[in-house]
Amino acid sequence: MRTQVAIIGSGPAGLLLGQLLTNAGIDNIILDRVSKDYILGRVRAGVLEEGMVDMLDRAGAGERMHREGLPHDGFSLAFDGRDHRIDLFGLTGRRVMVYGQTELTHDLMDKREASGGSSVYEATNVMPHDFDGAGPYVTYEKDGVTHRIDCDFIAGCDGYHGVSRKSVPESALRTYERIYPFGWLGILAEVPPVSHELIYANHPRGFALCSMRSHTRSRYYIQCALDEKIEDWSDDRFYDELRRRLPAEHAENMVTGPSFEKSIAPLRSFVAEPMRFGKLFLVGDAAHIVPPTGAKGLNLAASDVYYLFDGLLGYYADKSLAGIDAYSERALKRVWRAVRFSWSMTTMLHRFPDTGEFGQKIQETELDYLVSSKAASTALAENYVGLPY
Amino acid sequence: MRTQVAIIGSGPAGLLLGQLLTNAGIDNIILDRVSKDYILGRVRAGVLEEGMVDMLDRAGAGERMHREGLPHDGFSLAFDGRDHRIDLFGLTGRRVMVYGQTELTHDLMDKREASGGSSVYEATNVMPHDFDGAGPYVTYEKDGVTHRIDCDFIAGCDGYHGVSRKSVPESALRTYERIYPFGWLGILAEVPPVSHELIYANHPRGFALCSMRSHTRSRYYIQCALDEKIEDWSDDRFYDELRRRLPAEHAENMVTGPSFEKSIAPLRSFVAEPMRFGKLFLVGDAAHIVPPTGAKGLNLAASDVYYLFDGLLGYYADKSLAGIDAYSERALKRVWRAVRFSWSMTTMLHRFPDTGEFGQKIQETELDYLVSSKAASTALAENYVGLPY
Repeated sequence: MRTQVAIIGSGPAGLLLGQLLTNAGIDNIILDRVSKDYILGRVRAGVLEEGMVDMLDRAGAGERMHREGLPHDGFSLAFDGRDHRIDLFGLTGRRVMVYGQTELTHDLMDKREASGGSSVYEATNVMPHDFDGAGPYVTYEKDGVTHRIDCDFIAGCDGYHGVSRKSVPESALRTYERIYPFGWLGILAEVPPVSHELIYANHPRGFALCSMRSHTRSRYYIQCALDEKIEDWSDDRFYDELRRRLPAEHAENMVTGPSFEKSIAPLRSFVAEPMRFGKLFLVGDAAHIVPPTGAKGLNLAASDVYYLFDGLLGYYADKSLAGIDAYSERALKRVWRAVRFSWSMTTMLHRFPDTGEFGQKIQETELDYLVSSKAASTALAENYVGLPY
Repeated sequence: MRTQVAIIGSGPAGLLLGQLLTNAGIDNIILDRVSKDYILGRVRAGVLEEGMVDMLDRAGAGERMHREGLPHDGFSLAFDGRDHRIDLFGLTGRRVMVYGQTELTHDLMDKREASGGSSVYEATNVMPHDFDGAGPYVTYEKDGVTHRIDCDFIAGCDGYHGVSRKSVPESALRTYERIYPFGWLGILAEVPPVSHELIYANHPRGFALCSMRSHTRSRYYIQCALDEKIEDWSDDRFYDELRRRLPAEHAENMVTGPSFEKSIAPLRSFVAEPMRFGKLFLVGDAAHIVPPTGAKGLNLAASDVYYLFDGLLGYYADKSLAGIDAYSERALKRVWRAVRFSWSMTTMLHRFPDTGEFGQKIQETELDYLVSSKAASTALAENYVGLPY
């Protein structure tokens, strides 16, 4: 088999890249080691920057998002018992779109099918080869048979645990990492959200986040110790703890109901540099992970795809290597800004075991300054809606 | 002896408060355990916010400052081998004044003498009494004789190590503290400053600061380990290390010369709450310490004096307790904002032993974002020139 771009990973990054390539007439195949249903069963992010919205439109997969997604003009910072709204639209002229990653992945899969794109699911032992040489190829096994796809380029869109980054010699990679000393305990429940906008709460008991997937589906999180066990957290206990961390008005108005998903996720910042190795490109989580505070993970995958697609288009349309050569540097510049923002939101909003009462007062002062200074609010808002590509 | 306000400490805070009281016809005595010359021999801060400049003018002690001080419209952040100017005046419409604390203290002492204010130097065993009751008084010894000053109020302007805060029962105080894992090695030298504005440098080898007292006197600092010994640092070694941490243009242009002062200072953030105990008020360093990054220590003393003088004036002119009752809360609100800013400048610019390469990249990204975003630059600038009283 032969294609122009072999894409490893059928999450949002791989699907988005694949669709843009297909639309531009550039042949591509997507491989994924798991099934379509497995991918659609993963619960993930749900706040899209305008850049990501534009990319979905460009891919021709934005129709349902515009119909069902919830445009948000602001969000709340809750601390010291009160809500303080950050007026994203007023401060930056831009907004965000609340639309679940699962839905968006679904839309991209539908679009790929409709446009005849080629995807191989449950492809085991996927392996990129010879990306440092003239003839890169990808091998995989399916139904007991080994297949080989020769290609011009390989896009590694297979996440943090994927094979793409792991196939790069360690000596060629420089990695940066920060593990946070806590996790997020999150639930999904079929109840109307406590507020029509997101609430990020700083509280002496720990961080809390009230998010949503729709007008009828809520996504709630509370900061927890890394060694908490899900079975110790009944829905009642979860809601009680969440309410304690919110301003009274929200705690009183919260509609509760049985969760249908509950999980504990660790928080990590991770960056691997560079993001290109010859003809292999790392895209999205394969190259970088951010803690979810600030909702940047999915959006960073979109900006990586933007830069990579730009480079590939330049190569196939104009025989130019400039965009491909610039990919890693362009992507990483934006990646680091989002990594910094996610780190800073995480640091400002969570309880840390080692910063003591001084740390708590600094956080409260920072939040108070942030909501009272137009310059500081604007800096927060411009990062939240997404820095320009 | 009897006075209206007994002031403990003849540093800038005590002198400024005393002068404002004297000008308003409110009787006061300043006590200090050391001599005038000792106080004038201390090397301290030198960057004044406009609020501090206004206070000196109000005290009638600003003439020489306006003649000899250096108004600065900006400063530089140096990182990644380059200088990036923060245009304070362009961003905020305000500037800062470079004028040594020693000079300013001198001016206030001269003014006090000229206006017949009463000061007792080398007063030992100064002790505030009964500030929780109706009849507060201060005792001290001088030339072997014990004196007693009855008063309405006591202003504790005697610094972190002074007796004022220590005379408050521990149970009535809440303290917050952060000790930084490094110090500043600083020199004063009679050489023209390497740049006409201050340079704050972030470098993998550690922080550096190029400051000045005048066109011919430079004040240079480098971050050092807390266990460094001054005797290990010849002037040559100091200048070599300083140059390594600066962009090439500065390193090449630096004029060096023998230092006439060299010292290592630890960095600390400290706040004691509240700042009022009955008829005793804590002012300036007696209540709070900030690391020198951001030049806020002296300026905070001035804003404390502003709020306290306002309260005392209300009491003596209008028999109102409102300003006195509000002193602690008003002062602390601004104190915490400056504590946060000083902490954030310190955290952004210094090498920390425990944050590793991730920490260094985050700092570089933060600095790069800061100088490229107008909103973020403005937030930095508005803190640097001083938030409003």
